[in-house]
Amino acid sequence: MNYRRYFEAAVFRLRSERRYRVFVPIERDVESFPVSAWRRPDGCSQDVTIWCSNDYLGMGQHPEVIQAMIETAGRTGAGAGGTRNISGTSQAIVELERELADLHRKEAALVFTSGWISNLAAISTIADLLPNCLILSDESNHNSMIEGVRRSRAEKRVVRHNDLEHFEELLITAGDRPKLIVFESLYSMSGNVAPVAEIAALAKRYGAMTYIDEVHAVGMYGARGGGVCEQADVMDQIDVIEGTLAKGFGALGGYIAGDAALIDAVRSYAPSFIFTTALPPAVAAAACAAVRLLKSRPEIRATHQRAVQVTKHALLAAGLPVLENSSHIVPVLVRDAQLCKAASDMLLDRHGIYIQPINYPTVAKGAERLRITPTPHHTREHIGALVEALVDVWQTLGLPFIEPPANLGIHEKSAEQCAYPEILRAAQ
Amino acid sequence: MNYRRYFEAAVFRLRSERRYRVFVPIERDVESFPVSAWRRPDGCSQDVTIWCSNDYLGMGQHPEVIQAMIETAGRTGAGAGGTRNISGTSQAIVELERELADLHRKEAALVFTSGWISNLAAISTIADLLPNCLILSDESNHNSMIEGVRRSRAEKRVVRHNDLEHFEELLITAGDRPKLIVFESLYSMSGNVAPVAEIAALAKRYGAMTYIDEVHAVGMYGARGGGVCEQADVMDQIDVIEGTLAKGFGALGGYIAGDAALIDAVRSYAPSFIFTTALPPAVAAAACAAVRLLKSRPEIRATHQRAVQVTKHALLAAGLPVLENSSHIVPVLVRDAQLCKAASDMLLDRHGIYIQPINYPTVAKGAERLRITPTPHHTREHIGALVEALVDVWQTLGLPFIEPPANLGIHEKSAEQCAYPEILRAAQ
Repeated sequence: MNYRRYFEAAVFRLRSERRYRVFVPIERDVESFPVSAWRRPDGCSQDVTIWCSNDYLGMGQHPEVIQAMIETAGRTGAGAGGTRNISGTSQAIVELERELADLHRKEAALVFTSGWISNLAAISTIADLLPNCLILSDESNHNSMIEGVRRSRAEKRVVRHNDLEHFEELLITAGDRPKLIVFESLYSMSGNVAPVAEIAALAKRYGAMTYIDEVHAVGMYGARGGGVCEQADVMDQIDVIEGTLAKGFGALGGYIAGDAALIDAVRSYAPSFIFTTALPPAVAAAACAAVRLLKSRPEIRATHQRAVQVTKHALLAAGLPVLENSSHIVPVLVRDAQLCKAASDMLLDRHGIYIQPINYPTVAKGAERLRITPTPHHTREHIGALVEALVDVWQTLGLPFIEPPANLGIHEKSAEQCAYPEILRAAQ
Repeated sequence: MNYRRYFEAAVFRLRSERRYRVFVPIERDVESFPVSAWRRPDGCSQDVTIWCSNDYLGMGQHPEVIQAMIETAGRTGAGAGGTRNISGTSQAIVELERELADLHRKEAALVFTSGWISNLAAISTIADLLPNCLILSDESNHNSMIEGVRRSRAEKRVVRHNDLEHFEELLITAGDRPKLIVFESLYSMSGNVAPVAEIAALAKRYGAMTYIDEVHAVGMYGARGGGVCEQADVMDQIDVIEGTLAKGFGALGGYIAGDAALIDAVRSYAPSFIFTTALPPAVAAAACAAVRLLKSRPEIRATHQRAVQVTKHALLAAGLPVLENSSHIVPVLVRDAQLCKAASDMLLDRHGIYIQPINYPTVAKGAERLRITPTPHHTREHIGALVEALVDVWQTLGLPFIEPPANLGIHEKSAEQCAYPEILRAAQ
């Protein structure tokens, strides 16, 4: 039997639908981030500016974070050497879990090798331990949450995105059975922020448990980087907070924080936790250093938000179709898979700017976009070059510009922040 | 609604069944491995010898592996900064995949953040891309393989452990639909080795695809560390080889190697691959260094096997109930959950020897064991101390000794290797 043809056909389908992914090999350099080396298909190396990293705060490049990794690797070795139960519980991971529990003001935390696994493990285990549980899951939830819901034996209802009325309607209908609300604080492809306080209040009123994914928010929001829930002052109203160590904290891994009994149950029952090698101590130490740093350095968050505001403002002023939101994610809509890929290719080839196209199934068809993520390391020069490049690409590909919002420029702070008149002219 | 009680009850069930897991925090030290620091519950630190690490070859402590991690972290930072598709494809991970494809003489390889995820992702994706696929799965397969099978929509049949007749019977019954045989080369809790050549031959005869999990073999068997399949000279007869970077290679992560089309299909379709942050370049570089080293250093494998043989021989000579097998895993049977835990605790407290008890569900009830894994770093002194400690624990707990095998001592090489007369006396 010729099995190969099935795999070839599967890949061919993606190519014909223009959603075949080509990975771009990038060599980051701590000395120059976000400028990094792209290994071109012809084998040559070219400097590019990364504008799509999820190392949102550049903590993966922070000297103290790197030093923690280096010091721990040199002292304890490269790997953990086993599962958490079988020789893999390092002092570094114990400390990291303590630090994360403290970050979210919870009794305990549990670290996984990825955010994907933490959602799969935690959602399915929690739901399965609650008899006759009903899961209410936001329709825009990340794939890993959907997989967690799907893996559990619990019944589920999909809730319209951030729709409080729909949440309430389903909570009422559910009656007094155990109910688990599963949602994100910040949806990564749109930058939408959930009404966390309102959802927490509904959960309380109707006796539901709450499980929130804060992977795109931890480190970046709240007085100590506890995320959107800290910022909204509802950390204690949410039962389980899930986060990642691979974005705001610049390393690798995922985690949950919550009541000690719940954490102990997930620790004891989730096979994807039990049967997997622990994070290397060096990775745990790097993440721990980043968590600690961000607890006490609000200025990193402030610099980040400033870079985001300047970027959004400059792009809008240039007439680029930024999808507005209140977060640090800057989606620029293209609305066509092929043009989105072409725009990305042209940015890389012609302008040395690296922004991956976001196509179906990550976003809906017709909602294709460039997803821009400014970091505190992106200077005004980087932002200027970005706007200039995008305007050129938009013009070259004949993509539609929009009318800059009317209030742009009269907003005092924004006007001060944005000063790219030549770019504005080019766009008009 | 009081949700906490459900989690408390779940944990209570484990305690009452004597299978509640207590993690032992261990601080490894590259200078002294396998001797490491145990953080005791009273907060004090105590030296213990690790005898249950899955860093089988001690590569996590190898200076060249650690140096690769340190150098890469210092140069490129702590994390990958994104999924493979969105800025997370580092030069280090590209090189690692090339190295792994070469190790297994396959066209391509794909790296995941864990072996657990590589099995979940690859098995479910491969099976789902084959129309009307039937999966034949060995009954002793690892949890991650079972989860992969379960996640796929394919029909499955469980095959009796390593039973060639059963494999053949099911292959014949299946007829000419696509068939995927999913098995391990080396089963980690018993140390059993699969008849890989015979299974490959059956697969060929009946037109089935083969997927083998070599996580407990890669690095350790075969001329270049390609695993049991390389040793049996059937690497080219097996379609997909899955391995880990966290055991023989001492780092973190998992991988598959196979045809380019198959690898490209898994890369493109598996959500657990697509939607997760890539391994940090520093971890990939450490793993890559270990793979390279083990390709050219068969003496590391020879030293490992010698330590294993000496350990097995010494334990058998002392009358300890070693479960015999042809691999590097040395299970010593206790056959009772509570006694197994007590033996482990006594080894740690009284003798400074760390061997985690292996209880249900990792092994069947009544098959509880201490699972001992000698590394090349375990000296004859370490082995002597281990045997002495086990004999003391066996005597103290009244565990049954066995009659040392009759041929022990007449086997020339073994006799030369084993010289612990005082231990033999103590055991009799």
